[in-house]
Amino acid sequence: MVSCANPDSMVEETHNPLLDNGPMNGNSRHGEAKDEWNGVAEWKIRANPAAVNSKNPIRDVMESLPPVVARNGKLEISLAQGDPCAFGHLLPPDGAIEALLNTAESSMFNGYAHSAGLLESRRVIAKYHSINSKLAADDVYITVGCSQAIQLCIEALACPGSNILLPRPGFPIYETFSSYYGLQCRHYDLLPDHDWEIDLEQLESLVDCNTVAMIICNPGNPCGAVYSHEHLSQIAGLAERLTVPIIADEIYAHMVFGTRKFVPMATFSWKVPILVAGGISKRWLVPGWRLGWIILHDPRGILKRGRVVEALTRLVQMTIGTCTLVQAVVPDLLLHTSSDFHQKTLLTLKLGAELCFERVKRIRGLSCPSAPEGAMYMMVKIDFLDFVELKNDLEFAAVLRCEELVTVLPGTAFGLKNWIRIVFVAPLSHLKEAWDRIEIFCQRHVRRKP
Amino acid sequence: MVSCANPDSMVEETHNPLLDNGPMNGNSRHGEAKDEWNGVAEWKIRANPAAVNSKNPIRDVMESLPPVVARNGKLEISLAQGDPCAFGHLLPPDGAIEALLNTAESSMFNGYAHSAGLLESRRVIAKYHSINSKLAADDVYITVGCSQAIQLCIEALACPGSNILLPRPGFPIYETFSSYYGLQCRHYDLLPDHDWEIDLEQLESLVDCNTVAMIICNPGNPCGAVYSHEHLSQIAGLAERLTVPIIADEIYAHMVFGTRKFVPMATFSWKVPILVAGGISKRWLVPGWRLGWIILHDPRGILKRGRVVEALTRLVQMTIGTCTLVQAVVPDLLLHTSSDFHQKTLLTLKLGAELCFERVKRIRGLSCPSAPEGAMYMMVKIDFLDFVELKNDLEFAAVLRCEELVTVLPGTAFGLKNWIRIVFVAPLSHLKEAWDRIEIFCQRHVRRKP
Ligand SMILES: Cc1ncc(COP(=O)(O)O)c(C=O)c1O
Ligand SMILES: Cc1ncc(COP(=O)(O)O)c(C=O)c1O
Repeated sequence: MVSCANPDSMVEETHNPLLDNGPMNGNSRHGEAKDEWNGVAEWKIRANPAAVNSKNPIRDVMESLPPVVARNGKLEISLAQGDPCAFGHLLPPDGAIEALLNTAESSMFNGYAHSAGLLESRRVIAKYHSINSKLAADDVYITVGCSQAIQLCIEALACPGSNILLPRPGFPIYETFSSYYGLQCRHYDLLPDHDWEIDLEQLESLVDCNTVAMIICNPGNPCGAVYSHEHLSQIAGLAERLTVPIIADEIYAHMVFGTRKFVPMATFSWKVPILVAGGISKRWLVPGWRLGWIILHDPRGILKRGRVVEALTRLVQMTIGTCTLVQAVVPDLLLHTSSDFHQKTLLTLKLGAELCFERVKRIRGLSCPSAPEGAMYMMVKIDFLDFVELKNDLEFAAVLRCEELVTVLPGTAFGLKNWIRIVFVAPLSHLKEAWDRIEIFCQRHVRRKP
Repeated sequence: MVSCANPDSMVEETHNPLLDNGPMNGNSRHGEAKDEWNGVAEWKIRANPAAVNSKNPIRDVMESLPPVVARNGKLEISLAQGDPCAFGHLLPPDGAIEALLNTAESSMFNGYAHSAGLLESRRVIAKYHSINSKLAADDVYITVGCSQAIQLCIEALACPGSNILLPRPGFPIYETFSSYYGLQCRHYDLLPDHDWEIDLEQLESLVDCNTVAMIICNPGNPCGAVYSHEHLSQIAGLAERLTVPIIADEIYAHMVFGTRKFVPMATFSWKVPILVAGGISKRWLVPGWRLGWIILHDPRGILKRGRVVEALTRLVQMTIGTCTLVQAVVPDLLLHTSSDFHQKTLLTLKLGAELCFERVKRIRGLSCPSAPEGAMYMMVKIDFLDFVELKNDLEFAAVLRCEELVTVLPGTAFGLKNWIRIVFVAPLSHLKEAWDRIEIFCQRHVRRKP
């Protein structure tokens, strides 16, 4: 009795990650096993091809990169991952640690929580985010980071034969999850010369009767854009007219430091049902704590009628939820974090963003169409007419890393070729050093076709 | 522009949970929304039918039960959920809390970890579980509880058109996840009169060339059985002959208090590849911390050849992992927990199991074929010839709860009709009180057909 199918016929070949052809292909960590013991050939185990072919490009690239060896006293500087804790210059609020210590010592939160999360924490999250109508604990699902919030929103809406609208450039797990759950991904463009606003005409042209949602990310990763009240109102108006619900990724809510205020998408929930994905990862500087949430802003009960609430309830009952200790700390974080704490983070982000924006201007071949005003990312355009030796953003990033030990992610990972994404949440000294190296790198490689 | 499909044609009707017909049907929490505002009718959102129809019976029942109101000074006693922390009589090791406090105060573990988990923690887990061959960190994936470990093992193997072998009675999320990922579930019987050993002949008869795995749970939920070296060796021998890998759910590893020792399934990894699902939830009394693991025991590289390793890597890269603080504490838990701590837990379990076993014997209409020797559960058989008024285990559990405020889960939730599952991890005083009530309940209802 042996299983029959040929495993190799169903899955893609493997590739090298940074020099890869696109965000959704391959990984090189696991090759064929070499030693064939007795009887091994009889085992015809085959993995789920959907799992093998799934891909989170950021994680895949980051975890497949060979380690770089320090050279001439130069250490690697990574401006690749959006982890505000990576450099140690930003710490969570003291109160958060204290609350966690008290929670752990109380012995009250070692057991299982409700699948949707601790009631009291959901209550506080609901109250904190009530905007048009008063939200209840039942409108909130606590999740394993904002990633799982996004995952569950997509999964709950992923009817067979449907499609979903995603930003381009955009945070790549939207596509990862949408494809994994069988949705067709349709990309709407963000316009670099219009502060990365959405091309609404194009967005509208992508919608049909099988469109289950549009994902809107504001403040934005990877562009650092912050949308105005007016633009958000236009988006909501369009969504209403097209009857397409909005998944609002607001993991960077309130993380704005430019001229524009943060306007929650839920401001427009009387027009269109909004599923907000958020969490404590970024604003409270604890991405490793893995706590996010889904908040349903649906005063007209449209999501309930469509059984989306039921689907979400089922899904969290399968996955059981995130660390109860951390859940218990959420009320403290939301209610007792000082505005000084947040101001300090915003100032750090602002200075980092300004430095990066200024440095880009000085470097021939690079440009940045609009200064970032939120989140902790910016997109930098590479003019490959200036870099004839370098083929594309993937090669640019790979060679930069190899030669200057500066790691950035290629725009291709976000759906935009020939750009790179810079994380500016590093200390200024690191950012300066990184830009010195990028500048030297560009000077070394800049060469026009004759 | 409106979506077209009718949501109601694709999903099942809703039911009342405790009086439900089976483990995989319905839930009553979310009915239709009542108030229809302007324009609501135009919104034809439909949820993913697979999500709506998915079901974790334990969570569904537990979270759908109406609260019971204390009566005549009687409070509810729940022997339904396997949460050792529910009563406050069992606490995690002091060292664990201390390690967590130090970790939190160090500010070193607030950021993202590797998708498969912190390297040092994986190293320690690998070393701790090395048995035939030396395991490496790469053989370990840290997960969001053992639940996610089980989920990912099933998901990674879920090729379209395949089937999986599950124990009956068994922990219901095996079926939840298997069905959700499109596997056909085939149940092999555990034999109540043979210490809940597996009916190996029947198991063999269920295997065909599309069988991707068999799940073996030892020590067992819901029976409290502990398998002998001989029985496990027979299972492994059969799996080898049939070339079917084993998913070994060992969340209750070492939680044995009878005559039999715990024998890890991986003892037989030279015969058959073993994916162990485990974690800290039960043995370290912290289920709410949500930390589990997958350990691949595969000295011949069979899982790698079949790209199962790659599939798991992809899957954890999508879901990003569990709380980094808790991950950082794992080495401490594994290396520095005193054996006194474990002995104390085992003694508590032993006394609870003995009390329950003795009490069952005294009650007409109930029986328990073999004393539990591990985990924290036992199955009690109800002879419905003795209870003509009560239809089945679902009604037995529902009426018991209503009349005596004792909550137990019906065997149907585990695939075995006309049994109930008792959790014996409660304090003895609670167990005594619960059994007094069950005894009175049975005396009141016992009546044979004339
Ligand atoms: C836009 C966006 N959404 C969601 C996430 C995921 O957040 P979490 O770490 O809470 O899962 C990130 C993380 O970088 C992000 O940039
Ligand atoms: C047999 C079995 N496996 C797995 C689990 C899930 O464990 P965790 O809480 O770590 O997800 C349980 C929980 O009760 C269980 O009984």
